[in-house]
Amino acid sequence: MAEAVTYELLHKDAKTGARRGVIHTPHGDIQTPVFMPVGTQAAVKCMRPEQVRDMGAEIILSNTYHLYMRPGHDLIKEAGGLHKYMNWDRAILTDSGGFQVFSLGRLRKITEEGVSFQSHIDGSSHMLSPEKCMEIQQALGSDIMMAFDECAPYPAERDYIVDSMHRTMRWLERCKAAWTNRENQALFGIMQGGVFKDLRRESAEIITDMDLPGYAVGGLSVGEPKDIMLDVMDDCVELLPENKPRYLMGVGTPDYLFEAVERGIDMCDCVEPTRIARHGIATTSHGRINLKNAQYTRDFTPLDDECDCYACRHYSKAYIRHMIKAGEAMGPMLLSEHNLHFLINMMKNMRKAIEEDRFMEYKTEFYEKYGGFD
Amino acid sequence: MAEAVTYELLHKDAKTGARRGVIHTPHGDIQTPVFMPVGTQAAVKCMRPEQVRDMGAEIILSNTYHLYMRPGHDLIKEAGGLHKYMNWDRAILTDSGGFQVFSLGRLRKITEEGVSFQSHIDGSSHMLSPEKCMEIQQALGSDIMMAFDECAPYPAERDYIVDSMHRTMRWLERCKAAWTNRENQALFGIMQGGVFKDLRRESAEIITDMDLPGYAVGGLSVGEPKDIMLDVMDDCVELLPENKPRYLMGVGTPDYLFEAVERGIDMCDCVEPTRIARHGIATTSHGRINLKNAQYTRDFTPLDDECDCYACRHYSKAYIRHMIKAGEAMGPMLLSEHNLHFLINMMKNMRKAIEEDRFMEYKTEFYEKYGGFD
Repeated sequence: MAEAVTYELLHKDAKTGARRGVIHTPHGDIQTPVFMPVGTQAAVKCMRPEQVRDMGAEIILSNTYHLYMRPGHDLIKEAGGLHKYMNWDRAILTDSGGFQVFSLGRLRKITEEGVSFQSHIDGSSHMLSPEKCMEIQQALGSDIMMAFDECAPYPAERDYIVDSMHRTMRWLERCKAAWTNRENQALFGIMQGGVFKDLRRESAEIITDMDLPGYAVGGLSVGEPKDIMLDVMDDCVELLPENKPRYLMGVGTPDYLFEAVERGIDMCDCVEPTRIARHGIATTSHGRINLKNAQYTRDFTPLDDECDCYACRHYSKAYIRHMIKAGEAMGPMLLSEHNLHFLINMMKNMRKAIEEDRFMEYKTEFYEKYGGFD
Repeated sequence: MAEAVTYELLHKDAKTGARRGVIHTPHGDIQTPVFMPVGTQAAVKCMRPEQVRDMGAEIILSNTYHLYMRPGHDLIKEAGGLHKYMNWDRAILTDSGGFQVFSLGRLRKITEEGVSFQSHIDGSSHMLSPEKCMEIQQALGSDIMMAFDECAPYPAERDYIVDSMHRTMRWLERCKAAWTNRENQALFGIMQGGVFKDLRRESAEIITDMDLPGYAVGGLSVGEPKDIMLDVMDDCVELLPENKPRYLMGVGTPDYLFEAVERGIDMCDCVEPTRIARHGIATTSHGRINLKNAQYTRDFTPLDDECDCYACRHYSKAYIRHMIKAGEAMGPMLLSEHNLHFLINMMKNMRKAIEEDRFMEYKTEFYEKYGGFD
């Protein structure tokens, strides 16, 4: 039986771990490395799907936990699947819901079976298990399904991470067993192990032994210092096979994207571009700007003089600031468009740089212009 | 000197007062009768200008009071005028700000000079007078400016309406005197007089004597019963000259639009289509529906089976209901698109019906399908 999702390596950067590839899916090809916009509740916030597509997005991420809670995976299945329901005909990756369920804190309880929790909407009781997680994602019909895992917090005791990682590995076996729609949907395994390199190695061996269509690095960027994160990531990427896509979960600021791609990561996602948009913040080639700052009151230039997105072609900072201050939906609409376009365009530039073996040169140029990260 | 705005009568319906015309403006022609979407704060809420244009809108309304308060007319002038600032290259009508200022209630005080009031944003003190109103609208650069008037409440004593109407007429003289940019902007006079027909007649005589490019019927649809409103409107329209556009202010539900057009009104505006969108309500050819109602949970049909708007072509009621329930911006975005498209398409059908001398037949068909108004 043909795999639903396959990876093709096109070129490796001569000087770094960065690599240029294509992921083939039932809903089209994805040029990698790629940034995936997030459509948590079956919509990329403040954006029409055509706008997301037209800026070059070939895949979006949607959240299993949220869709399970509302409107329900059975309803989406009845609607003809998530693609049709939300009017997005390109690829979709769904997360496992694990991250959200574990984030519920006191409202959830972990057992070998899975996680029991109370809905953040109405307090109703639910259980998410590897089998349930696969049932939901197969009802949604996403192209790439993520295994049910525990994304352990930082800091955490080694003993906790050992237990958690091993349980996640047992859950992955159960996910694989419950994965029936292999012709149309791929299952990606997730490496855990916190910041402990030996545990990462053990986890990597277990997941790669299962020969899945793709692998993710989970449990990073959860609060650990940047240098520790980058050090662990160095190891993680090397532990993953070259012939499968590598996905670093929940990362989406320019600096982390550069660091991840430099090490050989192919896929990233983050809610940040649309979230900061709702707070009046734009990412530009000269760094971040907050449109609420008074200095933009009479600034009639575009958000970014190097950007050709819809917002930059048609509107000034002064106008967008007014929209934000006046509470008009147009403010987040324009900033979401710009912020997503910015990251997608940056990834496009990274791909071109890799093809030309000048990834580090592009990174250096970008950083110099951007001027410092947090 | 050529008038900035002129009216051309194309055809009169054989059986009613309805008429088909064109208003020529510096920013293109407007086919009448027309419904004008409202962009209060320099944006039609939840909509990109291209979307408003693509559904056929040839003119939008923007609010002088709101733009004066924030971001300020001087800023918009500096930005190159309202058209450029908000990325709308078709016609714009600005109201006078009077309606909003009078709505401030205890925060405002009326004198012969004008109205002093406190900003709803920061409580700062301001004075809006006929001269100031013209200064603001000329800075904004709208194609059609409305005279500064008092939109008196209903019910009101006759004595109050007499005084108010006469003051509004004196204010109109001052607006006309302060109207300097006649090559690019038109001034419309506003008839007042409450529900008193003799006062309406007197007001109509005063404003038409001033030979302005267009006239509005103000002070209706402010709470009076529908039969009284329609009775007064009968008279009002007849008092206005045939060679100038006639604008009924603040009206935008299907029934009122039909009644207005039937009597010979050419222009209407209302915030309602986008306001009800934010409350989860859609206007359809079969009446209004509230997407919050549980009956739409698994309704996978479009909002309106006769509509070809973006929302109806791509989304189901079930999806839009989910967006509304989940607090996603996409909900109001899709419903605003649909509701505006619905009214604009209805006006297009009215224009065609007038051309074919079958306005009443179209009205009857529409009402039968729509099924009852409030």
